[in-house]
Amino acid sequence: MTTPLNERRLANAIRVLAVDAVQQANSGHPGAPMGMAEIAEVLWRQFLRHNPSNPNWPNRDRFVLSNGHGSMLQYALLHLSGYDVSVDDLKQFRQLHSKTPGHPEYGYTAGVETTTGPLGQGIANAVGFAIAEKTLAAQFNRDGLNVVDHFTYCFMGDGCLMEGISHEVCSLAGTLQLGKLIAYYDDNGISIDGEVEGWFSDDTQKRFEAYGWHVVKVDGHDTEALHAATLAAQAETKRPSLIICKTVIGLGSPNKQGKEECHGAPLGVSEIELVRDTLTWTDEPFVIPADVYDAWDARPKGIIQENEWNTLFEDYRTQYPELAAELQRRLNGDLPADFASKADQYIRDVNSKAETIASRKASQNALQAFGPQLPELLGGSADLAGSNLTIWKGCEGIQDNPAGNYIHYGVREFGMTAIANGIALHGGFIPYVATFLIFMEYARNAVRMGALMKQRVIHVYTHDSIGLGEDGPTHQPIEQLASLRGTPNLNTWRPADTVESAIAWKSALERKDGPTALVFSRQNLPHLTRTETQITDAAKGGYVLAAEQGELKAIIIATGSEVDLAMQAYSQLSGVRVVSMPCAEEFMRQDAAYRESVLPANIRARVAVEASHVDYWWKFVGLDGKVIGMSTFGESAPAKDLFKYFGITTEAVVAAVEELVAR
Amino acid sequence: MTTPLNERRLANAIRVLAVDAVQQANSGHPGAPMGMAEIAEVLWRQFLRHNPSNPNWPNRDRFVLSNGHGSMLQYALLHLSGYDVSVDDLKQFRQLHSKTPGHPEYGYTAGVETTTGPLGQGIANAVGFAIAEKTLAAQFNRDGLNVVDHFTYCFMGDGCLMEGISHEVCSLAGTLQLGKLIAYYDDNGISIDGEVEGWFSDDTQKRFEAYGWHVVKVDGHDTEALHAATLAAQAETKRPSLIICKTVIGLGSPNKQGKEECHGAPLGVSEIELVRDTLTWTDEPFVIPADVYDAWDARPKGIIQENEWNTLFEDYRTQYPELAAELQRRLNGDLPADFASKADQYIRDVNSKAETIASRKASQNALQAFGPQLPELLGGSADLAGSNLTIWKGCEGIQDNPAGNYIHYGVREFGMTAIANGIALHGGFIPYVATFLIFMEYARNAVRMGALMKQRVIHVYTHDSIGLGEDGPTHQPIEQLASLRGTPNLNTWRPADTVESAIAWKSALERKDGPTALVFSRQNLPHLTRTETQITDAAKGGYVLAAEQGELKAIIIATGSEVDLAMQAYSQLSGVRVVSMPCAEEFMRQDAAYRESVLPANIRARVAVEASHVDYWWKFVGLDGKVIGMSTFGESAPAKDLFKYFGITTEAVVAAVEELVAR
Repeated sequence: MTTPLNERRLANAIRVLAVDAVQQANSGHPGAPMGMAEIAEVLWRQFLRHNPSNPNWPNRDRFVLSNGHGSMLQYALLHLSGYDVSVDDLKQFRQLHSKTPGHPEYGYTAGVETTTGPLGQGIANAVGFAIAEKTLAAQFNRDGLNVVDHFTYCFMGDGCLMEGISHEVCSLAGTLQLGKLIAYYDDNGISIDGEVEGWFSDDTQKRFEAYGWHVVKVDGHDTEALHAATLAAQAETKRPSLIICKTVIGLGSPNKQGKEECHGAPLGVSEIELVRDTLTWTDEPFVIPADVYDAWDARPKGIIQENEWNTLFEDYRTQYPELAAELQRRLNGDLPADFASKADQYIRDVNSKAETIASRKASQNALQAFGPQLPELLGGSADLAGSNLTIWKGCEGIQDNPAGNYIHYGVREFGMTAIANGIALHGGFIPYVATFLIFMEYARNAVRMGALMKQRVIHVYTHDSIGLGEDGPTHQPIEQLASLRGTPNLNTWRPADTVESAIAWKSALERKDGPTALVFSRQNLPHLTRTETQITDAAKGGYVLAAEQGELKAIIIATGSEVDLAMQAYSQLSGVRVVSMPCAEEFMRQDAAYRESVLPANIRARVAVEASHVDYWWKFVGLDGKVIGMSTFGESAPAKDLFKYFGITTEAVVAAVEELVAR
Repeated sequence: MTTPLNERRLANAIRVLAVDAVQQANSGHPGAPMGMAEIAEVLWRQFLRHNPSNPNWPNRDRFVLSNGHGSMLQYALLHLSGYDVSVDDLKQFRQLHSKTPGHPEYGYTAGVETTTGPLGQGIANAVGFAIAEKTLAAQFNRDGLNVVDHFTYCFMGDGCLMEGISHEVCSLAGTLQLGKLIAYYDDNGISIDGEVEGWFSDDTQKRFEAYGWHVVKVDGHDTEALHAATLAAQAETKRPSLIICKTVIGLGSPNKQGKEECHGAPLGVSEIELVRDTLTWTDEPFVIPADVYDAWDARPKGIIQENEWNTLFEDYRTQYPELAAELQRRLNGDLPADFASKADQYIRDVNSKAETIASRKASQNALQAFGPQLPELLGGSADLAGSNLTIWKGCEGIQDNPAGNYIHYGVREFGMTAIANGIALHGGFIPYVATFLIFMEYARNAVRMGALMKQRVIHVYTHDSIGLGEDGPTHQPIEQLASLRGTPNLNTWRPADTVESAIAWKSALERKDGPTALVFSRQNLPHLTRTETQITDAAKGGYVLAAEQGELKAIIIATGSEVDLAMQAYSQLSGVRVVSMPCAEEFMRQDAAYRESVLPANIRARVAVEASHVDYWWKFVGLDGKVIGMSTFGESAPAKDLFKYFGITTEAVVAAVEELVAR
């Protein structure tokens, strides 16, 4: 099979745009766009169902560039296909506030479905898209009315396949039979250190067959072969498909193709001239002939495709008006209109019940209360369902019921979290995922990516401190809360009891512009008495839980399991107030007057207590304050022994306050 | 094939010790020890070459329990084999400061080679042991004198195989042909959420064959089959071996075996009685019959084996006295006697040269200076050698030369880091590994594990801030430095120029009780002028780089690329001192008088400047200070535009100081 001349020319348009934009920016990666140009041409011109005039058409195929450093490939495709990415935008490649940043950034550029760059996470997001499509389809499609019905396509390189996360998510994709997931592997044999054979010698076909994938191998520059392989992949409805495309990195650059040199740096002016000669491309930089634009323009077909879907959806709305409205609501990301009032009622009910239970159990109770109202919840845990308490009575595994609402992710924290980002990006769902707080670290960069992309993903992290006891220092978080709190645009809640746990869940569910980490205890926490005002203020992230008797002399700030210690200390002291600070980020978003009312600037006798790393709290207690917490690793022992051994006790809090007040 | 009655009884000794200790602690995991008892008996009694009387015999086989929650399996083996783990120690399972913590902890228990629990990292450590053995053997063995010659054995469960890191390290182990690595997979079909088939359906044999491993499948309760499989694995010298052992979790517990129930909780008193009935085990808890002890005792054979090796080593010493002394030095972890003086000379030379270069280049120069003295260096990068600048002229890849000193790890940050922990634990090497600072996050928990285990692993992290420029927010670290600095027992250096870079490397190399992160810039940093005293003080982690003119009114604290900004501000201000703080952890270890001399407590006009998350610095500037840094994600643009856009400028530092002084 071969590639007709015209298609070669259409692919070459990508090549010249990529090399010229990288050269203009004096920074970037021309190798992947040049090597994948034919693959991109076949997929985008011959298969991809999308409408550049409406990048938000819900039933569009999803495309993910997992090798995100090849961003100019995606920008060239968006530009040529008719998205709102102009030649001037391409000229601004990698400049401040352009639509064409160094890596594809979700929210910056029409048509970019997810932010990629950190290798392996794009394919994980793609698995999330495919899970979302399959589950949403099972929940909403009705006979002959497949209103949710699209493919998810993903490009990936050697780097993605070396990363461990590719194992986690591709293994799960096979188990879940995501037949509408189609991945193209740019098998060019080159990574940054050179020819990969010295460090990457997997039989990738065999590896993916072991995961239960349908795998074909093709010449990645042969468009007819690519066309046939894509047809075969679409025809395979059970197994996800991997199309292994043997390519030459930087194809078209006579001196640099097939070498690492073309991977991550501009080719240089003289080599670019040779590229033009090689490709017999005579136009100036950033000039694309009209016939090439015409051949690439995906708008006319896209409008027809979307219109067909609109007609289908109108039929659906006629036959199933409630389902249609519900699908619309979910795709809009709106909670049910009465969610807030019902949630507030639940919070008051919990307050009345005044239970002493672990906050992880309080979390499960909140899920049980909110879950029946929220069919968009798509939960899961990395093989710790019974410890994280993430299953409520309405949960059904998608492994058993395709229209279910729970995913047994297996022991795959990183994959789970990046999949959840993909599910959130797809729309129609609010994913929540769970593991022990310490194993957040395995997923760390995906948590960050969700925050960067402003996605509503809820991270349930239980076993939040040395309070987990016997599992010991490998399992006891110390610096993890500080790490989460430092993540821009992430909210981190560490509730002190059932009331704060319910408030935290409500906050996380209502937050549309970013993820939330909900951090819960393994051990029981006593109920704390609150006024109605305090319940309202708890949602502000920090509030006075116990007001001072007489003149205010000192402030104790605490979170989670240590609020009880603070209250015990309070009962032994006078002139002291207790501030519960379940979510410092939310507190810092309150206006200055509120913050001053909670933490008056002139009160410098401040003690923070949290069974976590002390360093986070200097921000609130300053150079004159004290922090009672951890600065070493934990130990393996029953929890009560550990709190005593590490000096996180009521006595220590009392002593610290007394010392500060006496100064 | 079958299991003779006597061996079954020896295996049952593990089972009863495990269930009784877990019951006594009322916490722990009986399922894996019961399921793997026969595998353990075959390996430990019939194959493992070790000397319980000297757990530090350098040529012992290494054993790793990657499924570390099954710690009672390892403690039972250590106890039965004659290590310094008594019955009383077993009774103290999971109690404070016992030798038998919840998970195997390196340094707590004789015979525990590495800390495990976080799944997948044990097999990664094992790959590190096998790399260390193979490389050390190639460097030191001589004809007929194989003074380095041992196997590395690893047990792992479903969880390890689901984790992405297992892909990274097993793929690399295949490429590196680690023929002396033998792993046993406890294929019991159960994980915490239940039967794994709903979330883990890999064809594991095929998967590992795709990695280039030798794979056999056996009945994990058939000791003759296990024996034969282990012999075959030992005979295979090129490929690592995976022995897939079909087992029944909790075998011996009539009501709980084969179910998740026995995985992570005590069986209960009545079920334990049934276990005793089932196993026809009549002895009381913690009582082992003398003949069972005799059959297990590995000390007599171990002493003979070590003595044989001692004789071999004496021959070696006679023929190759210098090599023998060098091997001894390296196994002791001692640097060459003249290292410190030569390094100090290099630091003075660098100071005289006064170069303006990127600190990543300064790092490479330091490696070039120190490397020739240090054959124990075993470097590497996760496919970013040319960006991290981790290759010096003496580097040879172990892929090309088995006696080499550099590993092309591929795009495998987590695997690389956990492998480095294994290499350090093995002895004979100082591993250094590298990636971009942001991708430390992929490896986060392995960095932490190295700190917990007090291992000398050096993490080279380049591209340390928005100063990396165009790659954008996915690549720009914000909260990562705070995360590293919060990690107990990790030193984090962010040097300001060539001199501090050399000092940081020296500190990392000389530090025997923990890892060090060396954080370097992509962009050029100007040389800073220092006195001899300042050069000495820089090793203290924080020091006065520019003393105040006149009365001290304010302090500017800065690190890395921002020290230059601070110095520019200094030149426009009076009464101000500049403190360079390349390693806050080291600074905090200095005595109070030194810290007071640098940061006098009464000076509250303090400004910290670092192109990193602001929150870390409140610890040093307090409620009255200011921090100039980042609290949002970065952007894609040239570095100079970003520093300006985010307000990390000399002007901002000057303004902040002036505002504080005017208060």
